[in-house]
Amino acid sequence: MSGAEAFDAVDVIRTKRDGGRLADAQIDWVIDAYTRGVVAEEQMAALAMAILLNGMERAEIARWTSAMIASGERMDFSSLSRPTVDKHSTGGVGDKITLPLAPLVAACGLAVPQLSGRGLGHTGGTLDKLESISGWRAALSNEEMLRQLDEVGAVICQAGSGLAPADRKLYALRDVTGTVEAIPLIASSIMSKKIAEGTGALVLDVKVGTGAFMKDIDAARELARTMVELGTDAGVRTRALLTDMSTPLGLTAGNALEVRESVEVLAGGGPPDVVELTVALAREMLEAAQAPGTAGVDPAELLASGAAMDAWRAMIAAQGGDPDAALPVARHTEQVLAPADGVLVGLDALAVGIAAWRLGAGRARKEDAVQAGAGVELHAKPGAEVRAGEPLMTLHTDTPERFERAMAALADAVVVAPAGSRPPERPIVLDRVT
Amino acid sequence: MSGAEAFDAVDVIRTKRDGGRLADAQIDWVIDAYTRGVVAEEQMAALAMAILLNGMERAEIARWTSAMIASGERMDFSSLSRPTVDKHSTGGVGDKITLPLAPLVAACGLAVPQLSGRGLGHTGGTLDKLESISGWRAALSNEEMLRQLDEVGAVICQAGSGLAPADRKLYALRDVTGTVEAIPLIASSIMSKKIAEGTGALVLDVKVGTGAFMKDIDAARELARTMVELGTDAGVRTRALLTDMSTPLGLTAGNALEVRESVEVLAGGGPPDVVELTVALAREMLEAAQAPGTAGVDPAELLASGAAMDAWRAMIAAQGGDPDAALPVARHTEQVLAPADGVLVGLDALAVGIAAWRLGAGRARKEDAVQAGAGVELHAKPGAEVRAGEPLMTLHTDTPERFERAMAALADAVVVAPAGSRPPERPIVLDRVT
Repeated sequence: MSGAEAFDAVDVIRTKRDGGRLADAQIDWVIDAYTRGVVAEEQMAALAMAILLNGMERAEIARWTSAMIASGERMDFSSLSRPTVDKHSTGGVGDKITLPLAPLVAACGLAVPQLSGRGLGHTGGTLDKLESISGWRAALSNEEMLRQLDEVGAVICQAGSGLAPADRKLYALRDVTGTVEAIPLIASSIMSKKIAEGTGALVLDVKVGTGAFMKDIDAARELARTMVELGTDAGVRTRALLTDMSTPLGLTAGNALEVRESVEVLAGGGPPDVVELTVALAREMLEAAQAPGTAGVDPAELLASGAAMDAWRAMIAAQGGDPDAALPVARHTEQVLAPADGVLVGLDALAVGIAAWRLGAGRARKEDAVQAGAGVELHAKPGAEVRAGEPLMTLHTDTPERFERAMAALADAVVVAPAGSRPPERPIVLDRVT
Repeated sequence: MSGAEAFDAVDVIRTKRDGGRLADAQIDWVIDAYTRGVVAEEQMAALAMAILLNGMERAEIARWTSAMIASGERMDFSSLSRPTVDKHSTGGVGDKITLPLAPLVAACGLAVPQLSGRGLGHTGGTLDKLESISGWRAALSNEEMLRQLDEVGAVICQAGSGLAPADRKLYALRDVTGTVEAIPLIASSIMSKKIAEGTGALVLDVKVGTGAFMKDIDAARELARTMVELGTDAGVRTRALLTDMSTPLGLTAGNALEVRESVEVLAGGGPPDVVELTVALAREMLEAAQAPGTAGVDPAELLASGAAMDAWRAMIAAQGGDPDAALPVARHTEQVLAPADGVLVGLDALAVGIAAWRLGAGRARKEDAVQAGAGVELHAKPGAEVRAGEPLMTLHTDTPERFERAMAALADAVVVAPAGSRPPERPIVLDRVT
């Protein structure tokens, strides 16, 4: 430790280890020194574990978030003619909602600056999905992004490396040290990027259930509340929906498969749960944005009128994509059959997510490539009557040696109950935090 | 993580993070993989913090210790003609007890294989002290060590790098990650080296008080109990004394200063507390060794008879040292005066330790050198009557610019109460754990 440093990393770690509150100056220093490489990875790992086990107060989390924002640049949307509103999902199986939602809200007159990521593990990444569209590119300059927001109203692109670099470093560290599951660190990671991005309003979709990061509604509610507080304290009008992730969203999990389903929704069709959640989130975004002139706007009508589809086509084209190009299709498919006659009462989201991942839709390591056509297509959702031997799912992959491990993931995923049974009642939107 | 690894580091971390018990196979793997570099420093740091905060069961600590032993070589003293017994102190200010104790116990007919370390921070290292003797060398081969144990009965030397290499790596990591203060990790660190060393019996001196690592008697008792259990389970007859470290041991803290005082004790003089603790530990070592023919041996007599001094001279000479050489003396001294008339009721061990360290007796970083002559000499101990302006301490250093910071460390160290006061009654030996 150089004599010029304001604090000693071990003292900061000890403070949190012993259940104390980190001082603002300690937080500012430790994030900055970590970004500079003066606080070592092993020191931040010990601190992250102490935070996970001993928690942080609201003011500590807010300061931690501010320090991460201060580690990089901030974007500025004040020159735009439209008010900005963004959405973040904590990630789920078959969660393609961003794809129809961003153009739908753009069609409502707002600007949606969606900085997205790639998938790691069993939940897919929005950029991976869009990259199955011929010619589409994820990397935009700030100028390109601003121009597209002004002209089209929606952009889904890769976050630049200048936004909260401390978070990127810390996220990679948490991933390998068992410290991902700390609500203060999850909340500050998400919110530092959203606040640095400069959106005026933000709607959070916090998923709950087997296929989600949060398995438990109380933990999900705490995460939502923490993030809404962080956003509000930073001047971003923030609200959250808690939504169900016990079974996959829609009928597809996989990159091109989900793009196809999103286009169906934009065309006025698509699975009812995807339509319902897209419209619910769009309404929250309109309310949060508080934009004059959007008071009477109904997202459901703009979906039905084709205005959202027009915005989609413009958004894809503006990033070099061909909205009319045929989507990639996997070279091999295999069916999963219903094991018995009766009612499908359970179709586990996590199992479907892992199957899609193993088929090639996701990656195990950051440097892996994904297969555009791979994934799982569902032919029935909980509540449907099924007959033994009927196809319940189709598995898609370019590499058929993957079928076996995908099938293994699905071994206990399907629950068929005798005719007349009903699955547990689960609304899509479980709760709302404002 | 390679596919050939039996476990995933993140799963192991999560198990302990979530309050679970690590399986034997997880422990064996994580220590081995850490030694091989497959488990990264940041992963072990997160695990160490989880262990510190969530604890370990007795069987887990035993397995952790065995795994650290298995990371390196074990020594074998079975060829020796004498039974072996060792002693370990958790470290204190002015704790030179090993110096008179090892030759005293050798004079009783046992073999004492003391593998020691260098000091870091405010407690001195035994090797640093002995290196103030002209010609003495700390590094011995295993053959030299065995021969000296057979011929002299005592050796104090540097631990070879082959003993518990996992511990050396983990200790360095704990030092920078705020994870030193975990009883399971302290106990397994100490005991892995002592068990690997192959001693037949072991006496632990667990220090308690401001100048010790353990400030609190309950924590010290837990550490002692944990180590005695680990030793006993591994077939080493182990017992512990809890001893006072609220004020320095003896009248000196510093390398050559402590050698001088140790030689005084071996010559039949020296401060009563040093003599008392040396004899108490020697008696415990004799009892623990259970050697036939030592039943009637009284260490106090062997100290008085000069037999211990003979063993000291032989031990020093066997390692190239000249027991008659003049000891180094610091170039500069300064007095600390009594602030008032009355009774000295407090003389804080930690403050004296820090002062000696700042004068040059200790090192701040592993690569620093120490000054042989530097340190603090006390002229009064708690209970003594003092007069304002009389010297209470003499500070020694080769670098007089260090006096100011040493004086600052001592600012609140001295408490003088009105005549007739008595300091709190504190026996040297506070408790015994077998």
